Amino acid sequence: MSIPISQRLGSGLSNITRRPKRTLGFLDNFGTGQSTGSRIRLVGFRSTFRAASYRTVPRAPPIRRRIRPLPVLAAGSGLLTILFSALQPVTNEPLENLQDGDLPPPDSIPNDSDGLPRYRLAEVKAHGPKSERPWVICEDKVYDITDWIPGHPGGEVILRAAGGSIEPYWDIFSIHKSPYVKEILEQYIVGKVHPDDLENGRPLQEHIEDPFMLDPVRDTRLKQLTAKPCNAETPNQELTKSFLTPNPVFYVRNHMWVPVVEDAEAEEHNITIELPDGDIKTYSIKDLKARFKQHTVTAVLQCSGNRRSDMTRYAKKTNGLQWTVGAISCAKWEGVRLRDVLADAGLSLEDPGEDARHIQFSGLEAYGASIPISTVLDPMGDVLLAFKMNDEPLPRDHGFPVRVVVPGHVAARCVKWVNKIVVSDEESTTTWQRRDYKCFGPNEVKQDWDKYKAIQVMPITSAITRTRVQPADKTSGGQASESTQNSVVQIEGYAYSGGGREIQRVDISLDGGLTWDQAQLVDDTNLERGNKAWCWKRWRYETGLSEMVKGSKGESKATLVVKATDDAYNTQPETHKSIYNPRGNLATAWHRVDFDYTAALKACSQDKNKP
Amino acid sequence: MSIPISQRLGSGLSNITRRPKRTLGFLDNFGTGQSTGSRIRLVGFRSTFRAASYRTVPRAPPIRRRIRPLPVLAAGSGLLTILFSALQPVTNEPLENLQDGDLPPPDSIPNDSDGLPRYRLAEVKAHGPKSERPWVICEDKVYDITDWIPGHPGGEVILRAAGGSIEPYWDIFSIHKSPYVKEILEQYIVGKVHPDDLENGRPLQEHIEDPFMLDPVRDTRLKQLTAKPCNAETPNQELTKSFLTPNPVFYVRNHMWVPVVEDAEAEEHNITIELPDGDIKTYSIKDLKARFKQHTVTAVLQCSGNRRSDMTRYAKKTNGLQWTVGAISCAKWEGVRLRDVLADAGLSLEDPGEDARHIQFSGLEAYGASIPISTVLDPMGDVLLAFKMNDEPLPRDHGFPVRVVVPGHVAARCVKWVNKIVVSDEESTTTWQRRDYKCFGPNEVKQDWDKYKAIQVMPITSAITRTRVQPADKTSGGQASESTQNSVVQIEGYAYSGGGREIQRVDISLDGGLTWDQAQLVDDTNLERGNKAWCWKRWRYETGLSEMVKGSKGESKATLVVKATDDAYNTQPETHKSIYNPRGNLATAWHRVDFDYTAALKACSQDKNKP
Repeated sequence: MSIPISQRLGSGLSNITRRPKRTLGFLDNFGTGQSTGSRIRLVGFRSTFRAASYRTVPRAPPIRRRIRPLPVLAAGSGLLTILFSALQPVTNEPLENLQDGDLPPPDSIPNDSDGLPRYRLAEVKAHGPKSERPWVICEDKVYDITDWIPGHPGGEVILRAAGGSIEPYWDIFSIHKSPYVKEILEQYIVGKVHPDDLENGRPLQEHIEDPFMLDPVRDTRLKQLTAKPCNAETPNQELTKSFLTPNPVFYVRNHMWVPVVEDAEAEEHNITIELPDGDIKTYSIKDLKARFKQHTVTAVLQCSGNRRSDMTRYAKKTNGLQWTVGAISCAKWEGVRLRDVLADAGLSLEDPGEDARHIQFSGLEAYGASIPISTVLDPMGDVLLAFKMNDEPLPRDHGFPVRVVVPGHVAARCVKWVNKIVVSDEESTTTWQRRDYKCFGPNEVKQDWDKYKAIQVMPITSAITRTRVQPADKTSGGQASESTQNSVVQIEGYAYSGGGREIQRVDISLDGGLTWDQAQLVDDTNLERGNKAWCWKRWRYETGLSEMVKGSKGESKATLVVKATDDAYNTQPETHKSIYNPRGNLATAWHRVDFDYTAALKACSQDKNKP
Repeated sequence: MSIPISQRLGSGLSNITRRPKRTLGFLDNFGTGQSTGSRIRLVGFRSTFRAASYRTVPRAPPIRRRIRPLPVLAAGSGLLTILFSALQPVTNEPLENLQDGDLPPPDSIPNDSDGLPRYRLAEVKAHGPKSERPWVICEDKVYDITDWIPGHPGGEVILRAAGGSIEPYWDIFSIHKSPYVKEILEQYIVGKVHPDDLENGRPLQEHIEDPFMLDPVRDTRLKQLTAKPCNAETPNQELTKSFLTPNPVFYVRNHMWVPVVEDAEAEEHNITIELPDGDIKTYSIKDLKARFKQHTVTAVLQCSGNRRSDMTRYAKKTNGLQWTVGAISCAKWEGVRLRDVLADAGLSLEDPGEDARHIQFSGLEAYGASIPISTVLDPMGDVLLAFKMNDEPLPRDHGFPVRVVVPGHVAARCVKWVNKIVVSDEESTTTWQRRDYKCFGPNEVKQDWDKYKAIQVMPITSAITRTRVQPADKTSGGQASESTQNSVVQIEGYAYSGGGREIQRVDISLDGGLTWDQAQLVDDTNLERGNKAWCWKRWRYETGLSEMVKGSKGESKATLVVKATDDAYNTQPETHKSIYNPRGNLATAWHRVDFDYTAALKACSQDKNKP
């Protein structure tokens, strides 16, 4: 796979030496907020930006601008022009011939009325992620962001845009669309885009990179909710077909683009681990594989928004991807135990100290989240740095070359493409940790984000994934009524509870919850499981169609209901109204599915009439 | 405290050398079954007795009877008479002067028509628990149970009845009231009670010991459900008055009598620990205190039947003590960690082996239960052998001198008066482990006890414990309507979730669950807690009476509702119907309390008219 260097914000970047940071908190206000698709908005950015995002991160003073080749600081635009003309831009070289880091030959239009030089897009492109001085374009202006990077609350992810236009990224990280961010950027202006490369005041469309350009091709069976970023659920018929969800149909929940790490570079991909005392150790994947025992853990991953569309249907409008029942899948994961690696890095598992309270993760694409340290310290906790999924290398959509797997927890903590782990006294300050993934009371429309804890361990849930009418054996012949008589309704689905709690009972109702029976739990016992019950239980239920019709009391439709009970005897809430929250998280109420008698009877007779 | 020796089935008995047993399974069919008070019945005893209870326990062959002083085995009743007349019974000695173990002088009536000797009750009494040959009376017959003890499925607890009538104990262990048990006992007959000590064919009432005679005196504030055994709940006003429930009003759940261990003997009370390889170690309390670090853990204990009366009210009849909301309390426990003791006894905490799957406990009075070994292995699990409760030695009702405390689990596993711990490959075989403490689906009236797991970790629950109308400040004067205007309704209660999961939100509804608001959680943060959130959260809610009246829509009553959410975002089921089970276990549905507007308004005006 040949990939433009400017796209490769992968393992390559991890080699760039920047000043060490003591927290992953820099991501806090650059999260993608209220995700309802590819457009994302974060409420309250302005008010917390100054207060929170600079608290723990040293930043370059916004006024001072140090340009390494020249020892003089320029304040006026005239002087600026002279300074920047000392740089040597290139031009007219075919873009594809340019090497990242090369300076293109000069072809600027110096001294326009604004006194700023004009750069060809090819020149800007040469200031890519790996160049000495990375540049970005915003509107028609060119900025040298070199000195801004250490202070950027979003960290080095800003380099993803280097060499091109930053605006497609602001479409993802829409929080940047504020006068305040513009104000910061203005301090780093070095010129404008050459008029020949502009169309309606913006760089030519064909030169604007699509951040999702290099996303992998997905299996067409996935039910895609959004394309950019990709959010796609496992189709119903694949959900309970097998205990392990095949990789191609494992649900995909991406917050951004899929980082590119070449196969050849994967073993050299680094994970930096930072302890509370400031000690930093870096492990390549090769190191991890060579130095630590590998473990296999079978675990479900589930999005906190799974079944959100139910909450919308039965309670009211929710913000977020309208998942049905397929934002959950089960896989066998292989990798090394995070606790082993942390111990090797110098963390005392017995007495990690007061400052070691959370483990923060960040991924190559800028996503970040954290888990409580107790989850990692638990010898039965099975937290992995996983390289393999169902006996294959991790697919790119699922974190290639390495992701965190935190069994029993919400998948939002299982950070993909992980490249940095920080042991900290506080949670990750990303919006995905401190905002999005929380629930509120049914009345709490105005969300006080600090009031409740981030979702970690998942509550119990269950779902009906499939209802089939199995017509009576055609060889038996007989009347249509006999066919109905012997037809069977097959219902199947899954049940799952977080925290390693095993599902022990699944109750089925054919009359909306008035009367109940028990489903048969599918026995899946032949796999390496890990220390606790991290998996779902698939279940099946079968009943005679005619019995259902008899019980229907003349109604044309029945409401099938499923609810499950785990080994702590926790069970699901009855209604979505009672657990409503505007974000539509944890829509775990009894799952209700309509069953149409007329359609079922028709299916029988049709099938009967088939040759 | 002066206690008759025959009652002292306490630390004294633990010194008696019997053949070692490899399991605590001998209790299985002698549990107290379907407890609905002091009378207890176990269904299905007959059918499982032969199959299960002798599986692991060697018993003396029922026909052979070895009487140590004589080398001859007698089969006929004539010979029996001769044999038994060789014993030396005593008579007419005042009972209080007899020492346990002494043989009373002869005063039998030998050779009645049945050829059996007659014994005075004083003679029988001399064959108490510590005597060489313990005897019991059943109806008017006397049995020498010496050779039966090793085979008795209930273990040595049978000695509790030695020296007197066994029938009061069969009133507790009613499973014995079967022809099969009588048949076993008949093999050990040695005589009959002297006619002078009989009244209507039974020993004189004043000579029949009440097994509960030496139970402690209880605080009158406790709401007593049954006296023998004592089952009493914490009164509502004490439930949320303080974070720690004071010992005198901590709810009491006894399955039998309270064993007597004298203060002076407490330090010598032994706990025997048996590992899967058969290794046995014995620790006195003095040993435990001297050799292991002591820990303090604050934890709630809760009966699985707490709030059972709610399930009866809102669903249908349940079998069991009809607890309201007070079968729950919170205390500070001090003791040693069970894992430390097990490690010292030789169990590998890192690799306990395939045979180490459950930790079985038994107490002095015959109660037994077990927990999964993972609970003990968890370094954060905080399982204690506790000697102190709220800074005082354990009260007798709560396990003096030592009980197991398994935070986050049902109190039924926190065995009191513990004297034996067995690491086993199977659960305790008692009825309390394998039957009583389980839940079934709402339709499962016929309980297949093997189908579901024993209740261990508790699900989330909450309750309203108190509703008060606080009349408006009287100093403000004004009209009665003003008094109502400013009157305040104060609601308070608790919420709790097992497994160390912290309560993070309590929702209150004043209209039966249509609309919600959040209660204020009481901050109780100044205590030694242990590793997880093992405690309840107390909560308070306040609202204006006039606002409630406004919202009442003319109804004379409101239904106040509480539901809670823990940090895994599990919440309570809405209705008891959906979680109904015949035993009425885990009645954790939303707690509903009637609120009478008329009474509230009256309270205001009455208070107003007071001087």
